[in-house]
Amino acid sequence: MRLESLRYTERFGSVRINDLQRVLELDSGKKSETPRKEEIAVHKIEDEAIKDIEGRMAIVIPIKDEKLKLFEGVISGIPHDCLIIVVSKSQRKRVDRFRMERDTLAQFCHFTQRQALVIHQKDPNLAQGLAQAGYSDILDEKGVVRDGKSEGMVIGILLAMLNKKEYVAFIDSDNYIPGAVWEYVKIFAAGFSLAQSPYAMVRVLWHYKPKISRGMYFRKWGRVSEITNKYMNALISEKTGFETEIIKTANAGEHAMTMKLAEILPYASGYAVEPQELVSIFEGFGGVLPTAHQAAAKQGIEIFQIETRNPHLHEERGRMHLRYMLVPSLSVVYHSAFCSPATKQQILKGLIDQGILQPEEEIPRPYLVPPPQKVNVQSLASFMKEHLHTYSVLKE
Amino acid sequence: MRLESLRYTERFGSVRINDLQRVLELDSGKKSETPRKEEIAVHKIEDEAIKDIEGRMAIVIPIKDEKLKLFEGVISGIPHDCLIIVVSKSQRKRVDRFRMERDTLAQFCHFTQRQALVIHQKDPNLAQGLAQAGYSDILDEKGVVRDGKSEGMVIGILLAMLNKKEYVAFIDSDNYIPGAVWEYVKIFAAGFSLAQSPYAMVRVLWHYKPKISRGMYFRKWGRVSEITNKYMNALISEKTGFETEIIKTANAGEHAMTMKLAEILPYASGYAVEPQELVSIFEGFGGVLPTAHQAAAKQGIEIFQIETRNPHLHEERGRMHLRYMLVPSLSVVYHSAFCSPATKQQILKGLIDQGILQPEEEIPRPYLVPPPQKVNVQSLASFMKEHLHTYSVLKE
Repeated sequence: MRLESLRYTERFGSVRINDLQRVLELDSGKKSETPRKEEIAVHKIEDEAIKDIEGRMAIVIPIKDEKLKLFEGVISGIPHDCLIIVVSKSQRKRVDRFRMERDTLAQFCHFTQRQALVIHQKDPNLAQGLAQAGYSDILDEKGVVRDGKSEGMVIGILLAMLNKKEYVAFIDSDNYIPGAVWEYVKIFAAGFSLAQSPYAMVRVLWHYKPKISRGMYFRKWGRVSEITNKYMNALISEKTGFETEIIKTANAGEHAMTMKLAEILPYASGYAVEPQELVSIFEGFGGVLPTAHQAAAKQGIEIFQIETRNPHLHEERGRMHLRYMLVPSLSVVYHSAFCSPATKQQILKGLIDQGILQPEEEIPRPYLVPPPQKVNVQSLASFMKEHLHTYSVLKE
Repeated sequence: MRLESLRYTERFGSVRINDLQRVLELDSGKKSETPRKEEIAVHKIEDEAIKDIEGRMAIVIPIKDEKLKLFEGVISGIPHDCLIIVVSKSQRKRVDRFRMERDTLAQFCHFTQRQALVIHQKDPNLAQGLAQAGYSDILDEKGVVRDGKSEGMVIGILLAMLNKKEYVAFIDSDNYIPGAVWEYVKIFAAGFSLAQSPYAMVRVLWHYKPKISRGMYFRKWGRVSEITNKYMNALISEKTGFETEIIKTANAGEHAMTMKLAEILPYASGYAVEPQELVSIFEGFGGVLPTAHQAAAKQGIEIFQIETRNPHLHEERGRMHLRYMLVPSLSVVYHSAFCSPATKQQILKGLIDQGILQPEEEIPRPYLVPPPQKVNVQSLASFMKEHLHTYSVLKE
């Protein structure tokens, strides 16, 4: 893979926010010496380096009643050496969709001879293990893991930890294009190969997100992303005194982290999760508030933002979906310790003007699942020992 | 890459028509020993083998006034080691679109440090070289290469020959998905790695060809393909006495050939080109008519049909386009020496019923450009020696 080289990095305390890098070439061919002059403008990442990282990476796929054809396409695009971890919140009553997902995954893994894990978000054994391991904040009143995509993501992180993976990535299950999924993974690995710190994050920006309506219109930005990026940048600008547009991936659902970083971040419930990761990093390592983690602050947190070559085509869920995404996204900025009264006012006014919020309504504070490092891993591992194999789709 | 293993092959004289094989996994990861039991159902093709073939392959991209954004996406998906050959029939007057294409290609090649060739279909030097080399059948009354996509393809084949490539592939320039383009090339290389004969062809079947109209509808077959496949299969059935459905890629625009095979086939003008390749193979090597080429008949002609994981999304050109494709496609079958009076009648009736043909109208016979082996390669090479570098986009 060839990426544009890093032309600009913004520093915020011990956070390094790298400006957007585009993918130039999906496949850079056989290993070869890079001519010196090329290195100035281009990063060539050899397949070997990428595959090496893939072998240490878990890909978490949250799924909820998704079309199986799309799910099947997504998994077919994930490079073989990655560990697939599917976290499902699909229905099990009337129609057991969870079982269908597991069967689909098992069939795929049978023919491609790879291992994958699949777990239901409401799995009682996992819930019990988490309670014992001191992580009941993720449980609801019934004693199972709370609803929400981010809770599913945290389950994925924990399973990746138990499987000793060093990187964890998130890919949505509703993608139409297996080749785009393949590219996301290559981008994650390429980003990590460039990282200098063991606390690194790679966020994907879609080249285009086509709108499908009598033909195709290639949109560059989704509406939610545009607005969230704007306020996220305002958050930084107000602290540094320099206006910035550095954040271009506030809502990146497709993203990845080193396990070291994934362990120390809190996760906001629902659609607030991706912007919250950034805000937590800024708050914890921006040098304004007390440092959240000494070792990480010392090494620095590195954020990569990489633009795909493939367009992003996924299931459209209509305007409701958009509305339900915007409030959680902005709630993260709104309730940040960094957010100025002026920005708060702007956010409120914007939501009210768009008819998304009622004038007297308040923006709810995002619910935060505490960092996975809070889990007593040894306790969890020993409890889960006899259950872990039940999540594997290939029985040997 | 992992493919379904070959479960069924139909033989027709010295032609081996392999049944559809599906791609199971885009990326099969690091090289590893394949467990014995897997081999029964699955072909695992190592990256090394694929890259080795890519280095000997030319990818021909015919282009005509295409959106540059789409063209740029297509070239970004072609693995680095392949030689890109763009054959353009774009306008040069008013707006010089050919120049824009060359500039786009040059910029891409500059940053990715790869070489590519771009030539205009009406290039006067090439025309003169071809006339001298005894190939004026491809020229029109003005002495330049005739219009038509297949004539562009033949130019591509000839440039690939002059560049001593062993494989030549064709990919359309209107593809929305760079990751799908990447997959096509992997499929070509994977197919060739399985071939036993040096006379081999790989034809791509799209997993789905979505219809875009308020949301997506994932169509399995285009209308033209469905009809052409049906009559192509009838052609074989009538000779063998066994009904067959083996042909599933009669109209495969995305396809590739070993140079040895590409050299000995004639090419039908316009949209008849892909079905004509098959008919020429059946006529020349089916054992019914005299053999077209002794060496090839001895080694056998091998046809692979491989189904992608990615859907095919490309520029829609509406109903006119469909109509202009159907008549040429069926003309190939209609005018084949194998075609029975009954099948001829059926084809005519079908076209008239659909209002595509007038009752008294005749189906025009496809114009055939003779096989490239007719070209005196030495003469062409020596004439083109001083011009070839003008087609390279990277000047060193």
